[in-house]
Parts: sequence; C-alpha cells; structure tokens
Amino acid sequence: MAAHTAICQWSFGQHFNQETRRISCNRDGNALELFRSSSWKHIISSKTQCVKQCTSPMPFLGTRNVPKKGGIHALLPNTMSPSMPAELLDSWDDDYNGVVVDSASLPSSANAFASALRASLSSWKLKEKKGIWLKLFQEQSDLVPIAIQEGFDYHHAEPGYIMLTYWIPDEPCTIPSSPSHQIGIAGFVINDNREILVVKEKCSCSCVGVWKLPTGYINKSEEIFSGAIREVKEETGIDTTFLEMVAFRHVHRVAFEKSDLLFVCMLKPLSSEITIDEKEIQDAKWITPEELLGQQFYSEDEMSRKLIEICMATYENCYNGYTAHQLISKFDGKLSVLYYYNNNLNMI
Amino acid sequence: MAAHTAICQWSFGQHFNQETRRISCNRDGNALELFRSSSWKHIISSKTQCVKQCTSPMPFLGTRNVPKKGGIHALLPNTMSPSMPAELLDSWDDDYNGVVVDSASLPSSANAFASALRASLSSWKLKEKKGIWLKLFQEQSDLVPIAIQEGFDYHHAEPGYIMLTYWIPDEPCTIPSSPSHQIGIAGFVINDNREILVVKEKCSCSCVGVWKLPTGYINKSEEIFSGAIREVKEETGIDTTFLEMVAFRHVHRVAFEKSDLLFVCMLKPLSSEITIDEKEIQDAKWITPEELLGQQFYSEDEMSRKLIEICMATYENCYNGYTAHQLISKFDGKLSVLYYYNNNLNMI
Repeated sequence: MAAHTAICQWSFGQHFNQETRRISCNRDGNALELFRSSSWKHIISSKTQCVKQCTSPMPFLGTRNVPKKGGIHALLPNTMSPSMPAELLDSWDDDYNGVVVDSASLPSSANAFASALRASLSSWKLKEKKGIWLKLFQEQSDLVPIAIQEGFDYHHAEPGYIMLTYWIPDEPCTIPSSPSHQIGIAGFVINDNREILVVKEKCSCSCVGVWKLPTGYINKSEEIFSGAIREVKEETGIDTTFLEMVAFRHVHRVAFEKSDLLFVCMLKPLSSEITIDEKEIQDAKWITPEELLGQQFYSEDEMSRKLIEICMATYENCYNGYTAHQLISKFDGKLSVLYYYNNNLNMI
Repeated sequence: MAAHTAICQWSFGQHFNQETRRISCNRDGNALELFRSSSWKHIISSKTQCVKQCTSPMPFLGTRNVPKKGGIHALLPNTMSPSMPAELLDSWDDDYNGVVVDSASLPSSANAFASALRASLSSWKLKEKKGIWLKLFQEQSDLVPIAIQEGFDYHHAEPGYIMLTYWIPDEPCTIPSSPSHQIGIAGFVINDNREILVVKEKCSCSCVGVWKLPTGYINKSEEIFSGAIREVKEETGIDTTFLEMVAFRHVHRVAFEKSDLLFVCMLKPLSSEITIDEKEIQDAKWITPEELLGQQFYSEDEMSRKLIEICMATYENCYNGYTAHQLISKFDGKLSVLYYYNNNLNMI
C-alpha cells in the first residue's frame, strides 16, 4: 500500500543518501547509482515491466563489501586460464543477491578490465549471484563494447554515464525498467473578470495559431504545483498561486515511445500584465471561455472541450479538484506531496 | 493547454507510427527513435529540464531527406584532410533544425564511422544545425567510444540501444531529458463486510511483517486503473473492478535518482478467495480498518494514516475521487484516459 511503500522508500532513502555521499568521495563527486529497496520491491511486483526476458535486484549498499584499491581485491582460479590467478572487479552485494560493480575503481586498461570482468562473472556465477550492475562513466566509454561483448546489455543512461546489467540465473529476469513517464502540466489561470490566460505557441505542429493554456514539463525533482506556477510565469510573466489539480490525462507512446501524464492545475493570478517568452510563445492574452471554446480547434476534439468544462466547473465552484498537501514521514523526514480532495475529510 | 497538447500529440503520433513502421523495415524490425513535435514543444517549454548545459530539437521525420544506401550519401571537403573527399553519414533533418543520423546505414568499420562522423559534424556545423541525434544499437557498441571521443554525450538507453546527442550552437542546449518518473499503484479493495484486502510482502526492508495494501508499478503503456487491477490479481488472486483514483503521492529521488508517482485506486472486489503470489507475497488476508490502522507502523507515519483515511472516506461516500474516462481524439483516433471528478459536470 502507498503508505507502506512510502515508509520503505523513506527509511531506505536516508541510507541511500548517506551511502551516496560516502561513495561519491571516491569519485570526484560522481555518486554511484544506488537504489532503494522499496522502489525495487515496488518494481519487481510488476512482472511485465521486466527488461526483455531478464529481473535483477536493485543495487543497495546494505551489505556492501568495502573494496580495496586498484580495482583488484581478490584472487580465485581463473576460468579462462586455470594456471594463473585472475583479477576480480571491486564490487559489493545488494540486498537481493545481486552485485554492484564499483565504477570508481575499475582497471584503467581495457585488457585488464576485460580479464577482470570475465573472471568476476565466473566468480559471481559460482556464488549464484543474480543481477549484476555495471555503471560506466563517460570517460570509461572504451569499456562499453567490452561489457557488451561479455553479455551485458544497456539498462539506462543519462549524460555522463551509462548503466549496464547482466542477469545470471536461468530464470526470468526482473531487472526494473528505466523511468517510463514524462510529467506535463497545464495551467488554468482565470481572473476576477472571468478571463482565462491563454498563449499561442511557436511550434510547427497542427495547432499553430490556436489559443491554448500554458503547458510544459516539470523539471527534475520539481513538484507538480510548482511546475505549473513556473511554466505560467515563464511563458506569460503572470505570477500565480496553486489552487487545485482538477484533472490529469494519461497517454502512451510519446517521446522515446514512453508515456505522458499531463496534470491540469487551476491557478489564481497574482498579476495581470503579460510579458511573453519570445523564444517559445508567439502571443498571450486574457480571453473569455466563450472565445476560447469558440475556436474550431476545440469544437473538433472531445478531450479539449471536456478539460475546459472541468476547469470552468472548478471556477464556478461546482467541481472538486485535488489540493496539494506536503507531509513529512518520521522515517526520514523527507517531504512528499499528497494530492487529494480535502473538503470532507473532517467528517472522518 | 492540455487539450491542445493532446491534439498535437495525437496528430503527430499517427505520423510517428507510420514513419516508425517504414524505417523499421530497414533494420530488422529495429525502429529508429522518432519523437513527436508536441512532446518536444512540451519539453522545451521546461528550460531547466535541459540535459547539462545542452537543448536539442526532437528528431522528427517531417522533413526527412531520404538517405542513400551504404552510410554514404554526399561528398564535401573533408576538414580533416582537405585533399580528399570525406564520407558523410546518412541522416535526415528534424523539424527543429536538428539532424537524426540513420542508425540503419552506418559504416561497418570503426575507422570509416569515425571519419564520416567527423566530416558530418563539420558539415552540420557549416549548415548551422542544432541538435544531433545518434542512436547506436547493441551490436554497434564499438562505435560508442568513437562518438564520445567526437564530443557526443549519452542521452538515454534501453536494452538493445543507446541514444547519444551532440549540441552544436553556442547557446544553452534544450535537449529534453529522458523520462523522469515511475508510476506506481496501490489497490484499496474493501468488501461488503467492511474488510480491506491486505498483504505482507517478502522484502528485506524496514516494514517486513506489516499488513499493507497491494502495490506495484504499472507496465509499459498500461493504464493506471488496469495496473491496479492486475497487481491486486497477481498478488492476491482477487478479481476487482476500478471505482476511483482517490489520491496520489509524488516523491523524488527514488530509483535512478528519478521520481515516483503512486496512485491510490479504490477497487471493488469481484471474488473473495485469496491465492497469493508465493514469489512476492508472504501472506494476504481481509482485515478490518481498525486492525490495519492499529499496527504500530501506521501510528508512526502521517502519510500512511492519511491515505487510509481518504480510502475509508471514499468507501463511506463522504469523499470524491477521480473516475477514469476514455476519450478518443478525432485527430488520430488514439485512446487516452482522462481522470477527473465527474459528479458535478452535468451542472455545466
């Protein structure tokens, strides 16, 4: 359940952050990717979210073995050349019988890495390990083809690094997929004169010239209500406060074949003078609901009309949206936002 | 505005799919990553969502140049060796003065790729192109270090491929980031005897032994309401129907330092006999709200208690959640789900 999940995440989140800070000291501020047990549980409970045919535990430092320096910390019979010992990669176990390779202490030469990776895989197989996590930073890109050659696959990447994974067991893999959704917002700003703030975007899409609500994506780790306020300010110069999240739309197969959630937020204007963002916005103005809905664009799409109906019903106080409530969990003191309809909860 | 955005996405979505199918024929079913103009607009409107200091247009086939075969389709003075012509990579323009390299026809040798990539970058710079998109499939991993060497950076990856980008202009880059959120669900299933369906998970986190609602992540392209029904069925064997999405929680910096949205769904049970998923669930049962909230676990966390309060208020008909409404846009006939509180909209 949500609360349970939140608690898991928060309690592990603290550990996560502590570990990240500690490890990052080893690597010029580049923190290793760690994952929280709850998220992992959360993810493995969704079987078909597996990456290809393969489920790995999420790396977690709960049982980390402290690595030695130099990318070599053990000797064992080399399966490739039994007559000589083989180097093993520094690594630590996660909480799911998986292994996290220490990116901070990989052998510097490609040959040494290839040899150590091969020997390490043999060792991990003997130990019946499951998911192997290998994070390679941009400056280690020459090691990517070697890892692929040894059977690793791409998992996810961001500027500066790529994460690869290897699933050992002869059973379906449950490595969690990388994040699946982008979070968009639309700001419905209506003033005391019953005028709605709308923009015309500079875009080459089919709706050029249509008056519409300001929209955008939230930033990394940004709250939905904050993102709506920011987008409206950036596109129109209008200051607002968040009132309610009145509806959201879920659509699939957009950018990168991923999915998209668009949250429609009702905002109260705190200013009236419009200053548009020349780079993105062609024009902006205050418009009546009748003029907005009067555009042919809206007469042709049910979703468009419904969303404006919902926003106007909210304005006319005959509709209840979700308000935002920031709650802190005692488990890690982490602030999280709960969106719900608050009006009647006092009755409980 | 949301409706506008939806329309953009849908109208481009159709084109996207058509192009994907066509391109995939060139490459053993591996479709090139294409992006829809709306998503791109949606993303660039969020400036701080830029990847590092770098914003590139989203590749889009609207103005694609048809590539010739063999990974070479033009000649121009080679900036590296002016005396001889240089090969250029097959590519096409996107709608934002960017370039999408054709992964299906890259030179097979690393040296030829390096030479063609260098010459192509010179050509694109002369043409004042902006964002360059280079998708490399797993079997092309030997080209990754070469692209990095030439100044490309990782953008995102999934099993089987990695996408790299290069930003040419001397201005802030607005390349959109990869998806930022995982979408989780929690199923609140309560029967006519006022008993709630709860589980004990097999996990090593701090909440071992706690009775909680079934939770999980939705699958790729799965609806929230469908994911809730599936998770409850997988974990407990109980069949349900979706009633309302009563609240959602937004938390940041979870798996991969990304964010997490957990939607709490009220479901109506259609069966009562529990069959647990032995791999994930330790135990499951029907429990009274008093016994659920009586656990110390819940007395220690405000978020946990609030969510159960909301769910019980919904059950007691003194709370209004969002219902799911599937709407089709005439622009591409694509089904999208709009979640909102429907009770009062008839008043409009």
